[in-house]
Amino acid sequence: MCDLLRINTDRGVMIGDGQSRFSIDGKPIYHFLGTSTFSEYTVVHSGCVAKINPAAPLDKVCVLSCGFCTGFGATVNVAKPPKGSTVAIFGLGAVGLSAAEGARLSGAARIIGVDVNPNKFQLAGKFGCTEFVNPKDHSKPVQQVLAEMTNGGVDRAVECTGNINAMIQAFEFVHDGWGVAVLVGVAQKDAEFKTHPINFLTERTLKGTFFGNYRPRSDLPSVVEKYMTGELELEKFITHSVPFAEINKAFDLMLRGEGIRCIIRMDG
Amino acid sequence: MCDLLRINTDRGVMIGDGQSRFSIDGKPIYHFLGTSTFSEYTVVHSGCVAKINPAAPLDKVCVLSCGFCTGFGATVNVAKPPKGSTVAIFGLGAVGLSAAEGARLSGAARIIGVDVNPNKFQLAGKFGCTEFVNPKDHSKPVQQVLAEMTNGGVDRAVECTGNINAMIQAFEFVHDGWGVAVLVGVAQKDAEFKTHPINFLTERTLKGTFFGNYRPRSDLPSVVEKYMTGELELEKFITHSVPFAEINKAFDLMLRGEGIRCIIRMDG
Repeated sequence: MCDLLRINTDRGVMIGDGQSRFSIDGKPIYHFLGTSTFSEYTVVHSGCVAKINPAAPLDKVCVLSCGFCTGFGATVNVAKPPKGSTVAIFGLGAVGLSAAEGARLSGAARIIGVDVNPNKFQLAGKFGCTEFVNPKDHSKPVQQVLAEMTNGGVDRAVECTGNINAMIQAFEFVHDGWGVAVLVGVAQKDAEFKTHPINFLTERTLKGTFFGNYRPRSDLPSVVEKYMTGELELEKFITHSVPFAEINKAFDLMLRGEGIRCIIRMDG
Repeated sequence: MCDLLRINTDRGVMIGDGQSRFSIDGKPIYHFLGTSTFSEYTVVHSGCVAKINPAAPLDKVCVLSCGFCTGFGATVNVAKPPKGSTVAIFGLGAVGLSAAEGARLSGAARIIGVDVNPNKFQLAGKFGCTEFVNPKDHSKPVQQVLAEMTNGGVDRAVECTGNINAMIQAFEFVHDGWGVAVLVGVAQKDAEFKTHPINFLTERTLKGTFFGNYRPRSDLPSVVEKYMTGELELEKFITHSVPFAEINKAFDLMLRGEGIRCIIRMDG
């Protein structure tokens, strides 16, 4: 992981002089996550730029953002479900659906989506989810429901909620002997991951991931190529598109939890 | 992991009839860990027997027991330190020294032994330890000492103490981005592994192991072969040898923490 860029992008300034390149009425506007791409022009540190196939349509490959790469990479680069395995995805937002798509392309036989919002289940079917569990539908703990569905635990679990209880559940209900749980969500500042160490002794693995373990500069161009060759479908992740002038519609859609991604068109 | 044998060996009885095959004055003596080899004759479930090279000297290969396999396997099968990497071993008992030997044979460049008993450091040098840290010698936390010695964390940490704080330390001070911590020790019943989930987000891995991930029946014969070909040296693990009649001497040695292993000779 790049200490230099990570620390400085968190501070919202350019590395050279510790200053921002944006301002409004003389007040500085800080850079966002090292790219600040929510503007027509931007200034970016060379280490934050990846050169991709110039033929790639930008209104599609912009989906290859933090959310997509984190979820998709969490499965294909970190959880690495073997063909025919059973995978549980906790949380079916944009990150969780990307994780499910990764499990589908990895050849998982069963992909169990876990979410408290049943409206998400129909959409999740398009991303390979074969079964659904709504913890609210059960009086017993979701771990027990999953254990019964899978004869003792799933082969892989990917946690995409940021909820600390979901993190602990995801880990405690992977299968003894080979189960791998991957934590993707960002927990609250004071959250504590707690488990009895005996849960490790039974040969489970717990991993976390940042940006799906992709190294943006070197890896993103090859993910774009996966889209260009048709191996990876991005269109189904784009459920809405609005011109810039109607950007508040996009925020409303997000707040209502509708669709997956809304493309903001800078041409409008 | 073998559910059938694990559950029944824990109960100390044979699977067929749920009874023990030993007794004294009519009272049953239960089987120990599925083998009960601390007797001249024993009865063992066929699933608990591994056939090894008949030329192997039993007074040497008996060292390939739970302690050795757990520690050695924790490094070679689970932590898998790359050549040239830095490994920390928490606890330099028989298990920790086996883990260090595994790191040495894997080609680790630096093997840092951590123990509160400095008497163990000289012996540990024979098992590849290149540096030592006694937490009692430092006023700052051992994690900070290790982080300063290694520019931000070790590549692999293997915890062989069973102490819950050592487990948490071992995990929190592997390096971001690629560090792997392996929990080997058996913690107290009410111990709780606690950490902030952000420590996973920085791409660390936490694993546990049982018997070093060796599958006894299929894997032990090949470990015996490693000894027979000279790849693995077992003699240095044997520091004492006493006849059966003097078995209490062996217990005294163990309680005083002297040496590594004492062979009990059934001929005496």
